[in-house]
Amino acid sequence: MTVITKWSSELTTLSRVELLEKIRAQINERRFAHVLRVEEKALELAQDKNVNLEKVSLVALCHDYAKDRPDEEMIARIKAGDYDQEMLKFGSAIWHGDVGAELVSEELGINDAEILNAIRLHTVGASEMSLLDKIIYVADYTEAGRDFPGVEEARQIAAVDLDEAVSFATKHTLQHLIETNQKIYPKTLTTYNRWVAKL
Amino acid sequence: MTVITKWSSELTTLSRVELLEKIRAQINERRFAHVLRVEEKALELAQDKNVNLEKVSLVALCHDYAKDRPDEEMIARIKAGDYDQEMLKFGSAIWHGDVGAELVSEELGINDAEILNAIRLHTVGASEMSLLDKIIYVADYTEAGRDFPGVEEARQIAAVDLDEAVSFATKHTLQHLIETNQKIYPKTLTTYNRWVAKL
Repeated sequence: MTVITKWSSELTTLSRVELLEKIRAQINERRFAHVLRVEEKALELAQDKNVNLEKVSLVALCHDYAKDRPDEEMIARIKAGDYDQEMLKFGSAIWHGDVGAELVSEELGINDAEILNAIRLHTVGASEMSLLDKIIYVADYTEAGRDFPGVEEARQIAAVDLDEAVSFATKHTLQHLIETNQKIYPKTLTTYNRWVAKL
Repeated sequence: MTVITKWSSELTTLSRVELLEKIRAQINERRFAHVLRVEEKALELAQDKNVNLEKVSLVALCHDYAKDRPDEEMIARIKAGDYDQEMLKFGSAIWHGDVGAELVSEELGINDAEILNAIRLHTVGASEMSLLDKIIYVADYTEAGRDFPGVEEARQIAAVDLDEAVSFATKHTLQHLIETNQKIYPKTLTTYNRWVAKL
């Protein structure tokens, strides 16, 4: 896998070293390693698909940019911004997609609409998902460091059918949340109804 | 268990025989037997609780009144009425609660708001549920004819803690729907988030 070291100037003027430094400053070490593995898996999934590899790389590197921000800052941004205020009942696991897109734009100067949308959707998905959205959603679920029952099956499905992998990831994520009595964000159900139940 | 044979005239002027005849004319035999078992279980759950037993009986008998109506009639009513039009993407399993309340009012002349609300909620539940709502929701899940893995546990929980039984029924219903890739009505998730995840 060739790592992308320079992106088109319309996407970002940062070099790879500069971007990684900025990201590393925002998230813990374990998460930074995860981000690099998501990039690797996402580029692997993107092979032979009609998708911009530079965007794949940038979304992967930036997708968890906001995940280690203090709750107070996230809450303040959700209250101040044009967000679904229901989101406040949930936690960082939900917030970091939508708010992350805002922060990546503001602080990293990356403004490509497709990139920001894929960051927004990467945890909860959506009924409409672009190829880029699906690649990140599935790469985040199947990157090499993931280790849970079913991950190997998810990887095999992802290698042959991205839509089926979106379905698999969504179904199994929901099952895990319910098994452990965790709250479920309504948009996750929308994703389930489209990709699993094929409503 | 004493069966209620006469209801207060503010609730209905129909005798038990008259009401059962009208219900029997609307639903198949198997479902009619289910309805009688729901009444029995609901009255059992209502024992020693601060709830109007006449209403318990009426809701139980009327809760599936609309379940065997032709889809075309249900769809026409949903389109013409003040319903969430998203409901059209679902089926009779979802429609018969809301539309059933309308039909019970129109055709049986039962207009008590608490009774109609319990009919509305009996399949999908809600974040706010009255004692009457909960009794019907749980009785429908645990009546003596039900036979699925976990039903005995559900009955035992229902006998001691109605809220826990609402939670159990909601969780297991969702798990079954997901296991079989069936679509999930958003209000069911609202019920889950309140009663299972305690959002």
